[in-house]
Amino acid sequence: MTEKLSDTARTTMIEPLLKEGWSMVEGRDAITKEFKFADFPDALAWMVRAGVWAEKWNHHPEWSNVYNTVQVTLTTHDVDGLSTLDAKLARKMDTLAH
Amino acid sequence: MTEKLSDTARTTMIEPLLKEGWSMVEGRDAITKEFKFADFPDALAWMVRAGVWAEKWNHHPEWSNVYNTVQVTLTTHDVDGLSTLDAKLARKMDTLAH
Repeated sequence: MTEKLSDTARTTMIEPLLKEGWSMVEGRDAITKEFKFADFPDALAWMVRAGVWAEKWNHHPEWSNVYNTVQVTLTTHDVDGLSTLDAKLARKMDTLAH
Repeated sequence: MTEKLSDTARTTMIEPLLKEGWSMVEGRDAITKEFKFADFPDALAWMVRAGVWAEKWNHHPEWSNVYNTVQVTLTTHDVDGLSTLDAKLARKMDTLAH
């Protein structure tokens, strides 16, 4: 089962993400990051690649796109906060954006 | 050149869209619609199809996705309001969603 992250898990899983441009969302147990791409086709292609992983893991982002920018918010509704799935998807998104 | 829609053009181009679920955005000369799909893969596939047309026409939406829902806002920044491009892209999005 997916569980809300413990304090220890937060240190090991979320802190490294905060160094990669992710930040905590105010008022929610969620993380957010703005991804910038060269242009719209690059942004859309990245959304497709990240989206396929999201579907595979049955864990979907909240995200919005304007031209070359994608703003992503990750949280786990089932546990009302951050779970390992959010850290996993965030890392995958970072890898795909590199 | 793209121009802001005249009052006549609004009647012929925007009014039919308002009957298709589009609505005016409060405080902006823009239209918005929420598209609902069966699931996330359907929503993502539709975004890809609509996105390719957007790129072809060099006219891009502001849009956000959460699971099977895509919220779209269309306006033309170059004219600070609605242009024929918005009506054209809105109609294409409706066609692709049917």
